[in-house]
Amino acid sequence: MSEVRTKAQAAQDTAAALARLTTEAKNEALAAIADALIARSREIIESNEEDLARGREQGTSASLLDRLKLTEERIAGIAEGVRQVIALPDPVGDVLESFDRPNGMQIEKRRVPLGVVGMIYEARPNVTVDAAALCLKTGNTVVLRGGSSALSSNRSIVRIMRETLEKTEIPSDAVQLIEDPNRSSVDEMLKLNGLLDVVIPRGGASLIQNVVQNATVPVIETGAGICHTFLDDTAEPAMSEAISLNAKMQRPSVCNSMETLLVHETFARDHLPSLAAKFRDAGAELRGCDKTRELVPGIAEATEQDYATEYNDYILNVKIVNGLEEALAHIRRFGTKHSECIVTETKANAERFLQEVDAAAVYHNVSTRFTDGFEFGFGAEIGISTQKLHVRGPMGLPALTSTKYRIVGNGQIRN
Amino acid sequence: MSEVRTKAQAAQDTAAALARLTTEAKNEALAAIADALIARSREIIESNEEDLARGREQGTSASLLDRLKLTEERIAGIAEGVRQVIALPDPVGDVLESFDRPNGMQIEKRRVPLGVVGMIYEARPNVTVDAAALCLKTGNTVVLRGGSSALSSNRSIVRIMRETLEKTEIPSDAVQLIEDPNRSSVDEMLKLNGLLDVVIPRGGASLIQNVVQNATVPVIETGAGICHTFLDDTAEPAMSEAISLNAKMQRPSVCNSMETLLVHETFARDHLPSLAAKFRDAGAELRGCDKTRELVPGIAEATEQDYATEYNDYILNVKIVNGLEEALAHIRRFGTKHSECIVTETKANAERFLQEVDAAAVYHNVSTRFTDGFEFGFGAEIGISTQKLHVRGPMGLPALTSTKYRIVGNGQIRN
Repeated sequence: MSEVRTKAQAAQDTAAALARLTTEAKNEALAAIADALIARSREIIESNEEDLARGREQGTSASLLDRLKLTEERIAGIAEGVRQVIALPDPVGDVLESFDRPNGMQIEKRRVPLGVVGMIYEARPNVTVDAAALCLKTGNTVVLRGGSSALSSNRSIVRIMRETLEKTEIPSDAVQLIEDPNRSSVDEMLKLNGLLDVVIPRGGASLIQNVVQNATVPVIETGAGICHTFLDDTAEPAMSEAISLNAKMQRPSVCNSMETLLVHETFARDHLPSLAAKFRDAGAELRGCDKTRELVPGIAEATEQDYATEYNDYILNVKIVNGLEEALAHIRRFGTKHSECIVTETKANAERFLQEVDAAAVYHNVSTRFTDGFEFGFGAEIGISTQKLHVRGPMGLPALTSTKYRIVGNGQIRN
Repeated sequence: MSEVRTKAQAAQDTAAALARLTTEAKNEALAAIADALIARSREIIESNEEDLARGREQGTSASLLDRLKLTEERIAGIAEGVRQVIALPDPVGDVLESFDRPNGMQIEKRRVPLGVVGMIYEARPNVTVDAAALCLKTGNTVVLRGGSSALSSNRSIVRIMRETLEKTEIPSDAVQLIEDPNRSSVDEMLKLNGLLDVVIPRGGASLIQNVVQNATVPVIETGAGICHTFLDDTAEPAMSEAISLNAKMQRPSVCNSMETLLVHETFARDHLPSLAAKFRDAGAELRGCDKTRELVPGIAEATEQDYATEYNDYILNVKIVNGLEEALAHIRRFGTKHSECIVTETKANAERFLQEVDAAAVYHNVSTRFTDGFEFGFGAEIGISTQKLHVRGPMGLPALTSTKYRIVGNGQIRN
């Protein structure tokens, strides 16, 4: 049997035992993991240095190397993340509905673990711990498939987690790492119906598209965000500036940052030149429609291709529209249903935008950067779902659960 | 552009308009459809006769022809089903959560339509109306792909629905029928990411497996049920008989009927011979394990293959087990996570069974036949989900919705 199938089977065989554990038992095991990561941080850093050395040899960029790098401080941060998961309420066992039927059957709908979660991700080794902690807390076992660039780090982290679990009530087989660095191991995971209950991809667009296009296992799609901010004619100028600069510049590499600014022609005439100057002073490259380029000379043209691109960078498209209708049409065409914002003082326009824009999160006078599990107060985030089934938007712990109907009676039969 | 893509695009283009409609507008349109189906039943019956004639030519079985056949009475029943959907509460717009954040943002989580629902189904033309009514009520447009054996009936029904919608606030393009009878039209639907928001298969195991194996569009899997009843040593004999006969014999063709009876050896010794006689008197064919065949002579052996088969017929496997543990192991191995029952007076065993069996519905002293949207009181049923994501078990109207976060503030930006 292949490594992938063997390990997924082990995770599946362990799922029932994990589903039965009390919250206390799960929290104790997570606390032991947090302690062990810190106590054995030397070991992790040594393995991480192997990854870094290999990365330097292969000419990996400095920014990617920095994402990969683990230090005592970063490991302490990862352990602190595990402790935050411990502090969260355990959704498993929650009674979501409870009702009696006329024939006397009592029906309860309870939260249960999903079973086995497959995580396919890239780069940062902190995801290895985050994902394992979130899955274990919700009574799921997990099969981890991280990027090959972090393989030594991930091996070391998973060895420590598994060795630690041996001293707890969670079986060590609850955490599995796929070590085969070939793409074929991902492809195999995607077809493991019956062994994996769900696959969650975390990473760039090509990783996510590969999973969505090839998985027969159910998927929770995360990620891609082409987000817009629409400045309406009644938008308050100072608020417009603050929100749009924040949405683009505060952290452009993430999915909830803005890629295209839509500006009402009236607002544009009075305020776009100064707003554009602020963006350029802050280091952004602007690309614009024809009308924008009349008001803001010297910038490149924004093409159809640009409107369809998630830059994840300090680049912004600016398009002048003749009103709400054209803004909605642009978002319908180019948006990825992630996060969309209107800045306006016109209540009716705000309501129409919130109602009609089809996205996980729709904002009125708030930066799109808030689409995030921590900012929403969920205390953890498995990712941001961009699909409509199961969960949409920031995913807290309940996203890693399913439900079960329990029916109790005294001999009811159907007529 | 192909028929499939053209019609899916039309449904997608109509989705936003439908999502905005009030419950009243949707209900009026549904009432008009119910009236039109009755007023034009002659037309439907004539088309249905074409399907029946073609079926007879092709040697279709009498039972399948009966499922296909429409009469004035059956059409009245279908119209009555539409009126029942009108009477149900509209889940769209429901506020599921509402909370403020320390920075003053107000966050609401509201139910929204999924968008465009693809339905792939077989045989009975009543599904054409049922599916359309449930989708329209929840603000979704629908692309219907029924079986070729009912194509004339479906064409007639959809023509009547679309012509009726022209006089209502629901655009007629909200209901689309794929008329291409080739399997390639199904395959094309399964890959329409961006045009279809979900595909729901309804039909036999091979139809469902084709959808699950080949869809890149999100799927809600329905159907397959290898359901068990376990008679524990303390099971009440009269109740055991009533529940197991009901679970197998009342309607064996459906997914929540029993395929295998697991019997505690103590209970078997005292009661299995008489219970087996009752099953055989009722017309069931029994297949048994070695121990069963000692107690009930003259029956065939139940093979591994039998335990893994959904008979949908008057055939029952009987297996004697030495206790709860072995029953749980058998269910883990052969169950399809649909509906499972324990009959026992031992509270601890009941609790353990309800807790540990991984299925959409777990029963204590109640027939598995109750896994059904109407029996659960949902007032409608889109199907019974056998997957763990999004919805599990009988699906009512909320299964056809997603959610959206609406965030309202006064200039909040992220630090």
